[in-house]
Amino acid sequence: MNVIYADNNATTCVAPEVVAAMQPFFGECYFNPSSMYAAAKGAAKAIATARQQVATALGATDVQEITFTSCATESNNHAIFGALRMLAMISPERREVITTMVEHPAVLEVCRQLERDGYTVHWIDVDSDGNLDTRAFVRALSPGRTALVSIMHANNETGVLFPIEQLSRLTKETDPTILFHTDATQSVGKQWINLSENLAYVDLLSFSGHKIHAPKGIGALYMRRGTPCRPFLIGGHQESGRRAGTENVPYIVGLGAAVELAVRTLGADESRVAQLRAQFEAELLRRIPAIQINGYQATRLPGTTNVSCWSIEGESMLMELNTHGICASSGSACTSGSLEPSHVLRAMKVPLGAIGGSIRFSFSRYTTQNDIDRILDIFPQIVSNLRVSSPFWNAAEQKPTVE
Amino acid sequence: MNVIYADNNATTCVAPEVVAAMQPFFGECYFNPSSMYAAAKGAAKAIATARQQVATALGATDVQEITFTSCATESNNHAIFGALRMLAMISPERREVITTMVEHPAVLEVCRQLERDGYTVHWIDVDSDGNLDTRAFVRALSPGRTALVSIMHANNETGVLFPIEQLSRLTKETDPTILFHTDATQSVGKQWINLSENLAYVDLLSFSGHKIHAPKGIGALYMRRGTPCRPFLIGGHQESGRRAGTENVPYIVGLGAAVELAVRTLGADESRVAQLRAQFEAELLRRIPAIQINGYQATRLPGTTNVSCWSIEGESMLMELNTHGICASSGSACTSGSLEPSHVLRAMKVPLGAIGGSIRFSFSRYTTQNDIDRILDIFPQIVSNLRVSSPFWNAAEQKPTVE
Repeated sequence: MNVIYADNNATTCVAPEVVAAMQPFFGECYFNPSSMYAAAKGAAKAIATARQQVATALGATDVQEITFTSCATESNNHAIFGALRMLAMISPERREVITTMVEHPAVLEVCRQLERDGYTVHWIDVDSDGNLDTRAFVRALSPGRTALVSIMHANNETGVLFPIEQLSRLTKETDPTILFHTDATQSVGKQWINLSENLAYVDLLSFSGHKIHAPKGIGALYMRRGTPCRPFLIGGHQESGRRAGTENVPYIVGLGAAVELAVRTLGADESRVAQLRAQFEAELLRRIPAIQINGYQATRLPGTTNVSCWSIEGESMLMELNTHGICASSGSACTSGSLEPSHVLRAMKVPLGAIGGSIRFSFSRYTTQNDIDRILDIFPQIVSNLRVSSPFWNAAEQKPTVE
Repeated sequence: MNVIYADNNATTCVAPEVVAAMQPFFGECYFNPSSMYAAAKGAAKAIATARQQVATALGATDVQEITFTSCATESNNHAIFGALRMLAMISPERREVITTMVEHPAVLEVCRQLERDGYTVHWIDVDSDGNLDTRAFVRALSPGRTALVSIMHANNETGVLFPIEQLSRLTKETDPTILFHTDATQSVGKQWINLSENLAYVDLLSFSGHKIHAPKGIGALYMRRGTPCRPFLIGGHQESGRRAGTENVPYIVGLGAAVELAVRTLGADESRVAQLRAQFEAELLRRIPAIQINGYQATRLPGTTNVSCWSIEGESMLMELNTHGICASSGSACTSGSLEPSHVLRAMKVPLGAIGGSIRFSFSRYTTQNDIDRILDIFPQIVSNLRVSSPFWNAAEQKPTVE
């Protein structure tokens, strides 16, 4: 059975160009880039090229602002713990952190740890469209007391974009010493990001390779020159002392290639994906009664659709889709196995009768019209079938029995 | 020019079997192992197989004792910081750590940070053969006060093996609550390690893949069941909550294959490598005046030769070897770029006139008789040539001008 992959916010296939770029570094150029002999210079040079590719793609002015890590989770841990440990030395009076209710667990859990460590964390809420309560954000900013803001760029579950440009500017206008971090794992390569232009007020930016067709196991952290941030992995001179550990040369090369490719094709890819998504959502709304598309009114990533179907269970839909070879997701892969309803959809006040029947489809530049058509052929029927046996569905009137 | 690679303690080539094992996970099986659909089960199953391979190879009784990390540096940071952060909650009176003067920077630097954090660190010395001062170790053990011991298994620069079996038993006999960690990065796959037999008193063991023909960017941490140790990377359910971050499926598969391969062929490979090394060292001693092989009298890894040549500079030897395509190293790749003489050789009291002329050759199962012969053809001549222009060399008497 052909797989139809609509779970690109969980992970992506590795681009053939990326696989090809990595191969020499599993083969003849396996050397340690720190070694002095000529043979190893190829490895060191490949890392330098990749660092330049990432810096250029993100509009960083200095290649040393890019540190390669093993994943976005490491980048987030590094950025938040690293910055706060350094600030604890130089500005110990700053003990407040601002984040949102809808962050990825890699920021959520770090912030919960900060609370246990004695920090005050302000959790900013969202409205029913998934938009951030900007007024609450401004009220939480406290000159001289706020140490760090950590707010994601695009939400992994809904694709809703937060106005990082505006939030980071407001932060620096309030107090230029407050550090601004953004988890841009879902937006790098899918949104225009320039750290010298639209994101010029961002100090720290995390992302990973495996959302943009590099392998799982590589990420990066942008740290603006001068940002106080202690290394997280210590014990070696690598990455100019910013991150210890022998460099993962093949994946670093792969990340450089993947970022360059994504940014180069961003305009064309994303408008094509946006068109597919618009058609997909219009058809879902037309063919399936009693559904809502979460974040529909908000500015979103072009490739993410998060839909809540009243009166049925997301897991049942996924299982049925699976029998047709369709890969989708209910919530984040990083919280899978949990029976809790999505913290993102709860924050958006999705009604109880709908939140359980939530499912995320996420597309990429490899998604085809045929993929969309095939999901549209199958998915409405699955919803309809599941509702037949649901005690919460009124089949005669085609509406939920309980609002 | 053919490369003769004698720097396997820095990194190793990726075994063809390992490259082959990884390929499907860059290709058709790129899925997120946390995903629910059938297509992703292959990724989850591949991780389970790799975990079993590693557990079996190390004699771990429970696969959950194996956590995959991004490198040995992460494993060391995780083990030491993770254990001490947990102990700080449950046994806050334990504020002492014991380590050695000759650890890899990934343990050295972590222990220096512990000192800054208020821990008392006992730095155990070695003798001129590189053997640990076991009496000083025993004196440093303090029931009720020692939190953690971290002592490497095999030294990366000299190959000298520490008696981890005996040291861990002594530790537990003194106080079973003291945690025993070993950095086994250089010994896994090269020495017999069984965590239920010879290393049954070890609680935490770190290693990486790239010393045993897996790629750079993957490691593992063994944590004995019940060992108090807080996660280091937080923010996801992966690795049963022990290490957050989307799993690097290809490299995890590669690590499983590499460990299995290394352990299966350990006896034959290591005795062949030991024979090559014995011949190599005998010839060096015969052909080159005024040299010493560091750790010569100690029990060592079979594939490591660390030689100090009086009156010349290690960097000059490396450059000359490089012109002949021979890859070797002066000290650890993780401290390259530093002009400091090796902390390991300093601890071994290698005389000043010899320490600068130190070089490490390290072999692997891919090293051939021809490689050894070729180095022996070239290296003695290089030493001889460099000494001609050294003011510290008495050419007439073939000895240093200064002792």
